[in-house]
Amino acid sequence: MNDNTTQNQSNGYTVKKHHKETFEKIPEDKRENIRTVAAAEFARHGFKAANINVIAKKAGISIGSMYNYFNSKEDLFLTVIDYGYQVLESVISEIDLEKGDIFDKIERLLRAAQKYSKEYPELNQIYLDITSEGLSHLSVMLSRKMETISAQFYRAMLSESKKSGTVDPKIDEYVTSYCLDNLILLLQYSYTTDYFRERMKIFAGEDALDDDEKIIRGMMYFIRKALSPVLNKP
Amino acid sequence: MNDNTTQNQSNGYTVKKHHKETFEKIPEDKRENIRTVAAAEFARHGFKAANINVIAKKAGISIGSMYNYFNSKEDLFLTVIDYGYQVLESVISEIDLEKGDIFDKIERLLRAAQKYSKEYPELNQIYLDITSEGLSHLSVMLSRKMETISAQFYRAMLSESKKSGTVDPKIDEYVTSYCLDNLILLLQYSYTTDYFRERMKIFAGEDALDDDEKIIRGMMYFIRKALSPVLNKP
Repeated sequence: MNDNTTQNQSNGYTVKKHHKETFEKIPEDKRENIRTVAAAEFARHGFKAANINVIAKKAGISIGSMYNYFNSKEDLFLTVIDYGYQVLESVISEIDLEKGDIFDKIERLLRAAQKYSKEYPELNQIYLDITSEGLSHLSVMLSRKMETISAQFYRAMLSESKKSGTVDPKIDEYVTSYCLDNLILLLQYSYTTDYFRERMKIFAGEDALDDDEKIIRGMMYFIRKALSPVLNKP
Repeated sequence: MNDNTTQNQSNGYTVKKHHKETFEKIPEDKRENIRTVAAAEFARHGFKAANINVIAKKAGISIGSMYNYFNSKEDLFLTVIDYGYQVLESVISEIDLEKGDIFDKIERLLRAAQKYSKEYPELNQIYLDITSEGLSHLSVMLSRKMETISAQFYRAMLSESKKSGTVDPKIDEYVTSYCLDNLILLLQYSYTTDYFRERMKIFAGEDALDDDEKIIRGMMYFIRKALSPVLNKP
């Protein structure tokens, strides 16, 4: 194994670095500039059409330096993806997932997803791209990593809430987690591309992109009813 | 306007043809072959990377003939998209949307979405591609056309069911339509690319891709509760 495959333990899963050690030795603002330029180029052109020479030029570094930091365009791309996950994790870590009941937690997740998507459309756009067939050799690995953590989180939260009586004891944790994450993922997409922004306005109303509270309120009403225990007939 | 912009009225919205008249004069099996080959190439490589010369060769026609039928790669692409919508419409028309209550209708829609996605992954893959930023000049037009019809359909169904008491009178038809369509769209995606297939197994369980009934049952339980009127406390 070479220097860019160092394995570290962090957050309970194995992190594989996709850059070379040299990338860690340059100042953080320079690293940030390279990641930001690369993210914008990958978001705009997709992985296949993005050009590593153009990225180097726009970042103000030589192509030689670029290959000193990354073995390949694929490794640069994976570094940007990892950065996206780090940003997402930091957004999630800002919300207190211990406080309140399951509905408070889901509402905070929805708000975080909305905020992240509005602030970082490029990172979201790249996530959307890796779900397409052409990048499947990268995507299966990436999906296992992130989706497994989310799925386990949802299932644990649902199990616990079933026991405490906050959630309908008859729901299936698996399909219910899938439904919840589908709602959150499409909320993220809705702020990311022209197509999904247009679709959101058509379905949720002309003011949907501006009235963040209306979307959270409507989605929470839907989710709260879907999960709540069935009340007895009068 | 030239011969490929003929406007027809059909199904209540304006259909714009993207092929030339000459394409209508060749036998249907030859047309179908060109559409199928083109759909597979666009699904595999995306709109930008797909090559019209390769499509002509694989379809067994000369590039001259191809340009006799279509003005550009974009028009060929839009013809494939239109064909996808026709197939989707025929799948939907097979299900009786008059019969039963709103839950019967939604269940039939879910089953149709599942069936369509499993049978026509290429057409679904192309839909997924047009939602990405790079094709936004095509996508806003396309989204208006199809999504408007679906959104109106959901809203009318919800309004009617609110009046008849089948559905919670307090729901917002707009955000609720958005939630319902989000669930159905991600169900379609889940059978389309490696990424989404993997994601579905991680969330809904290892058997999710094979056990179609389990998915329909779990999703319908979720949706039925989300929409039903709130019952009084005992």
